[in-house]
Amino acid sequence: MTAADGRSYGRAADGLRPVAIEPGFVRTATGSALISIGETRVICTASVDEQVPRWMKGRGSGWVTAEYGMLPASTGQRKRRDAATGKPDGRTIEIQRLIGRSVRGVVDLERLGERTIYLDCDVLQADGGTRCASITGAYVALALAVEHLLAQKLLRRSPLTGSVAAVSAGIVGGVPVLDLDYPEDSTAEVDANVVMTGEGGLVEVQATAEGTPLSRAHLDALLELAALGIEQLRAAQEMAIAVGAGGLADAPAGAGEAAS
Amino acid sequence: MTAADGRSYGRAADGLRPVAIEPGFVRTATGSALISIGETRVICTASVDEQVPRWMKGRGSGWVTAEYGMLPASTGQRKRRDAATGKPDGRTIEIQRLIGRSVRGVVDLERLGERTIYLDCDVLQADGGTRCASITGAYVALALAVEHLLAQKLLRRSPLTGSVAAVSAGIVGGVPVLDLDYPEDSTAEVDANVVMTGEGGLVEVQATAEGTPLSRAHLDALLELAALGIEQLRAAQEMAIAVGAGGLADAPAGAGEAAS
Amino acid sequence: MTAADGRSYGRAADGLRPVAIEPGFVRTATGSALISIGETRVICTASVDEQVPRWMKGRGSGWVTAEYGMLPASTGQRKRRDAATGKPDGRTIEIQRLIGRSVRGVVDLERLGERTIYLDCDVLQADGGTRCASITGAYVALALAVEHLLAQKLLRRSPLTGSVAAVSAGIVGGVPVLDLDYPEDSTAEVDANVVMTGEGGLVEVQATAEGTPLSRAHLDALLELAALGIEQLRAAQEMAIAVGAGGLADAPAGAGEAAS
Amino acid sequence: MTAADGRSYGRAADGLRPVAIEPGFVRTATGSALISIGETRVICTASVDEQVPRWMKGRGSGWVTAEYGMLPASTGQRKRRDAATGKPDGRTIEIQRLIGRSVRGVVDLERLGERTIYLDCDVLQADGGTRCASITGAYVALALAVEHLLAQKLLRRSPLTGSVAAVSAGIVGGVPVLDLDYPEDSTAEVDANVVMTGEGGLVEVQATAEGTPLSRAHLDALLELAALGIEQLRAAQEMAIAVGAGGLADAPAGAGEAAS
Amino acid sequence: MTAADGRSYGRAADGLRPVAIEPGFVRTATGSALISIGETRVICTASVDEQVPRWMKGRGSGWVTAEYGMLPASTGQRKRRDAATGKPDGRTIEIQRLIGRSVRGVVDLERLGERTIYLDCDVLQADGGTRCASITGAYVALALAVEHLLAQKLLRRSPLTGSVAAVSAGIVGGVPVLDLDYPEDSTAEVDANVVMTGEGGLVEVQATAEGTPLSRAHLDALLELAALGIEQLRAAQEMAIAVGAGGLADAPAGAGEAAS
Amino acid sequence: MTAADGRSYGRAADGLRPVAIEPGFVRTATGSALISIGETRVICTASVDEQVPRWMKGRGSGWVTAEYGMLPASTGQRKRRDAATGKPDGRTIEIQRLIGRSVRGVVDLERLGERTIYLDCDVLQADGGTRCASITGAYVALALAVEHLLAQKLLRRSPLTGSVAAVSAGIVGGVPVLDLDYPEDSTAEVDANVVMTGEGGLVEVQATAEGTPLSRAHLDALLELAALGIEQLRAAQEMAIAVGAGGLADAPAGAGEAAS
Repeated sequence: MTAADGRSYGRAADGLRPVAIEPGFVRTATGSALISIGETRVICTASVDEQVPRWMKGRGSGWVTAEYGMLPASTGQRKRRDAATGKPDGRTIEIQRLIGRSVRGVVDLERLGERTIYLDCDVLQADGGTRCASITGAYVALALAVEHLLAQKLLRRSPLTGSVAAVSAGIVGGVPVLDLDYPEDSTAEVDANVVMTGEGGLVEVQATAEGTPLSRAHLDALLELAALGIEQLRAAQEMAIAVGAGGLADAPAGAGEAAS
Repeated sequence: MTAADGRSYGRAADGLRPVAIEPGFVRTATGSALISIGETRVICTASVDEQVPRWMKGRGSGWVTAEYGMLPASTGQRKRRDAATGKPDGRTIEIQRLIGRSVRGVVDLERLGERTIYLDCDVLQADGGTRCASITGAYVALALAVEHLLAQKLLRRSPLTGSVAAVSAGIVGGVPVLDLDYPEDSTAEVDANVVMTGEGGLVEVQATAEGTPLSRAHLDALLELAALGIEQLRAAQEMAIAVGAGGLADAPAGAGEAAS
Repeated sequence: MTAADGRSYGRAADGLRPVAIEPGFVRTATGSALISIGETRVICTASVDEQVPRWMKGRGSGWVTAEYGMLPASTGQRKRRDAATGKPDGRTIEIQRLIGRSVRGVVDLERLGERTIYLDCDVLQADGGTRCASITGAYVALALAVEHLLAQKLLRRSPLTGSVAAVSAGIVGGVPVLDLDYPEDSTAEVDANVVMTGEGGLVEVQATAEGTPLSRAHLDALLELAALGIEQLRAAQEMAIAVGAGGLADAPAGAGEAAS
Repeated sequence: MTAADGRSYGRAADGLRPVAIEPGFVRTATGSALISIGETRVICTASVDEQVPRWMKGRGSGWVTAEYGMLPASTGQRKRRDAATGKPDGRTIEIQRLIGRSVRGVVDLERLGERTIYLDCDVLQADGGTRCASITGAYVALALAVEHLLAQKLLRRSPLTGSVAAVSAGIVGGVPVLDLDYPEDSTAEVDANVVMTGEGGLVEVQATAEGTPLSRAHLDALLELAALGIEQLRAAQEMAIAVGAGGLADAPAGAGEAAS
Repeated sequence: MTAADGRSYGRAADGLRPVAIEPGFVRTATGSALISIGETRVICTASVDEQVPRWMKGRGSGWVTAEYGMLPASTGQRKRRDAATGKPDGRTIEIQRLIGRSVRGVVDLERLGERTIYLDCDVLQADGGTRCASITGAYVALALAVEHLLAQKLLRRSPLTGSVAAVSAGIVGGVPVLDLDYPEDSTAEVDANVVMTGEGGLVEVQATAEGTPLSRAHLDALLELAALGIEQLRAAQEMAIAVGAGGLADAPAGAGEAAS
Repeated sequence: MTAADGRSYGRAADGLRPVAIEPGFVRTATGSALISIGETRVICTASVDEQVPRWMKGRGSGWVTAEYGMLPASTGQRKRRDAATGKPDGRTIEIQRLIGRSVRGVVDLERLGERTIYLDCDVLQADGGTRCASITGAYVALALAVEHLLAQKLLRRSPLTGSVAAVSAGIVGGVPVLDLDYPEDSTAEVDANVVMTGEGGLVEVQATAEGTPLSRAHLDALLELAALGIEQLRAAQEMAIAVGAGGLADAPAGAGEAAS
């Protein structure tokens, strides 16, 4: 694979931006992480509520749901708060549904028991790929919350059936590239978000062609790139979970930084 | 390809449900169609507004946007109106964004000029695949509206760069099948919605695995099935547009019925 | 009575537009009808919910309520969805309260038992008189739903104490006329909506003078015209109910068409 | 006409409750009145805004609109504020549309010029007939505001083409009676609200039968009763306007009391 | 203390505007008062609900809460209704929280028992100091409601532990003055609202400097002025409660007028 | 002054919790700071919008406004997002109005020119005193944004007329103490928030007595404590601004930590 000219951080077409995951960033949450993918930074927390939504009561099964927000200053131009407009916008809703579905893909809800885990992903800085960073970071927050519940004997067995991470890939100037930053995302002909388990199974694929339709060959190339990226993200997730679960929540920022 | 046992209408795994597209169903709309895919029925209309949203003004370019709704009685159990709850729900927002993106994929917005076309998709009966039926029917409504604008000399050249249709495919009981009805959709391990142009280019791919991750081989099988279905839908679209544009808006229902 | 010049369909002052009621139009509803009064077309459905609103619980009595909506393309200029504005507008609320009150006028709520019937009236095309068409069609949908509940032994005795229909009348250019279409409605000096039982009792009278007050003599003339119209609407209702209840829900459109 | 047993204030079937109209009750309003009909009391104000709604701009014509509210303590059981529920309820919307239409019936909007008059009717105490009291009092507030605009030379000629008042009538225990108080209203078989000009022309008639349909003969009886009541209300209005316009805004409460 | 030039009603710097409290102004409320402080007039009512909010149930303790509103015509320029905008504005929320906190400061909620008292303060005319007038009047409405509950044996012992009143003070043109009217409020360098018990204890102090910070000496001066004003308000409250509780709810307006 | 037993961090009654201000925490904002007061942590950003609200246009003057939010996981029990409930709650509105007023107290809006600065305060962890921490941190974010505008020559002269900070004080167990953490705040008899300029002038005083009224002597003691705390906060602000403005935005966390 040849290098794409002028990518940020001098990356090749198949390179991720620098990845850092700081576990335990929010001490009032049951599990948490601050994930940085280049200049994109997202605060992810897992909060446990010892009940389930009304429509699930009495089934002996739990629920995992996600919410996504952007701090007003996270983009160059200030973004109005959803509370000021009265409702989350369409993009927000689409993203939080994707995060929830993706993470539920690796949770055995029956083993979780009748409780809800809320995954909150709040974007501190947005430079492309916030939904993928949110999924990747939310999994770390969830895994740390599960460790906490196990330690407290509230769970006997982990409900996690695997790990999950997400990365974007796209066609920019005719070339398939991995992990688009905002300038690349704005000019991409095709934009794909790929969610995979740690074992490499596909959980969700979303590919959108802007203008020019996508060929099957290009779709294949994007899926290959994504698989490469997910592998590195999984390594960063594992390190962050190990650090966070080791009672080292107060370790200095960057403890879970991956060699990207 | 072997037959899947007990599919509705005695279909094989690669069979579509009966397709009918009735052009001109709503005479107050600039373009319209009532599309039926088995028991799923959607009213699609195209309304022209001779201005663009504020954020697009003065660029000499047009806009195409979609809205999606379900009549309260369209599902077995009555669904509350969005107006009663104060806002469209998450699924509705996700679907209407998908319809809009998909159809814009075959529209040259500059050629459209500074006007907006609203595509409204209102589900009369829901039996699986309403978002795909909406895209397929909305394209017909749009094409008829474009014919109308051309006939009225409001457009000199069609802004359509191709046709677009959508179909679902999924893994049910381990078998890849085309065009899931509601009972199949409820039990599918994987659910994919594929939007393609008439020439076979991919416009949008959304595949979601529930529980078991999806292999690359299965994803390929789903894309093959979808391509087969899209071809038949394109034929039904062409016939409906020909009938509708031929001043035959009062033709009997089923005029655009496809040999499925 | 002399003819009013230039009425649509060459009608006399006391003439209805062509009436057609297609029973069973929405197969997912317990009862349904597509009513056409000239170019005004309304989809009416009856959905049964086996519970009552909280404030009625435990009284052994049922409830019938109505909701009204207009598809965005039903008027010449696209109408924004209520869900986009966050709430139904004043006219919508006024109309759905009228439909509900009118139909409840012929229902014995105690005999209905502790269940709610929702009557949804969604306007496909609007050309004047949509509230009256809604009441007339909603009664057919309700009667078919009651037939269904009786057939399923969920009801032992029909809760209907009679039939109900509605028609408009008005003073246009000084002349009292029946069943105003949109151009007439826009220029009428007086606009009245009259709801009557099949036996000719008044259920609701709403007369509004725009500009010139209304004399008692003119009010009498409007009530006479309305009584004539209601009689014909009742005949169309009866035929549609007979067809719909006879297991003939798949009969061709127009089965319930009245000789107007 | 025979007396109805046990009516409040020892009234005959054709008797109004005691009527008092206190002009100038709210000194920050351009025109105002506190109207009392028995224990029903409504604060009515007219506020002038020197512009019209966007959709009316540039037509050289004005607008008159009404809003209606109930103070939380105005009914026996506290009523939640609309601001707490996020929107006015259906009954409120229906009533404020009626008030607006009724008063506009006696206003020449072109003569008013490009300005809006807001009529606000806030119920202090509710004991039946609040919508009729609102119309009757709003007319007084409007007339006083017009006097003010004339005195200030903002208007050259009054835009009022007549006066307007409203009263209820109904069938209670089989007997037609005038001006129902709350206990009567709750048990009435038929409830009608009649809006008339000072010259006796009908502006709006709304009659609703609860349970038993209404005969034409009974409707006639109700209209007769209403005409009697309107005459007395007109006298009370005239007196209040004379007092209020005479610079006597600080006159003691009850100055406009009618001999009922 | 020297006189401030040109204060309304020829007041000295330490003078209140004329105070009048009319008890029993709203006969449908359990307790009520119309309070006038100069041209500022507020309708205050106390409504009893024999239950508590969900979060308080089962604690054997009651609740007192306040709501505040302005009639649209209460200010010179018409103020839009909160129901029209969908939510109370920030100032309204701030004020009603202050009223609730202030009054709860003199209520023993356990002695009140499991019931809620709603204090509604609706501004009829606004000329500065509406939040203070609301607190002062709401206390009278509450005290009258308590008298009523005691008379009905619903309470055995009064839950009131004292009385409460509020007054504003500020620095205008460098001079500390008591009870600002609207013109003074608009130009004040410092604006303070002081809530005190009848015994002179501070319940709430809110002082805001606009532009120039406030010195400790000036804060002391404002608190002295406030104490003077509260004493007079307490006298007016006591007289109004005595009149209102004495079965004299129909006494002529102004019965509780204070010698200011 | 004697020590209060068992205060967090072994503080005396007049001790602040450890204070740290990290400048430049959000790189997409014009100015930003992460402020920690013990376990209370708030992200503060200043965003510049080169226009003013509609009601201020054309006056040549600028605007500074604040918004406040809590991340869902910032409290022990997850707090619902405002966007989910449709509007910010009363406490949020009260707080953001306080922050805005307080900071505007040290800004010369004319010198700012026709632009708006939004101060966003998002609570990461809440342990008492979040509104005071927000004001103190928002001032740092604002000062850094002003430095940026000066460096870019968008401003010629700083519009800041001084610095501003805030601290809480209260009566706990009868003893006046400085800077209450959450457990102290929950049991305090009196809770005061004091906003002061760097020169010691009062900008806002809010004191609320829960249960027992506050004496003048105790109010004086609270104001003394607050003045002590503000002095230390000012030192921490100055250091953080110096570090942040010195192009040292990437300095390690805690750079602005105060010796408390």
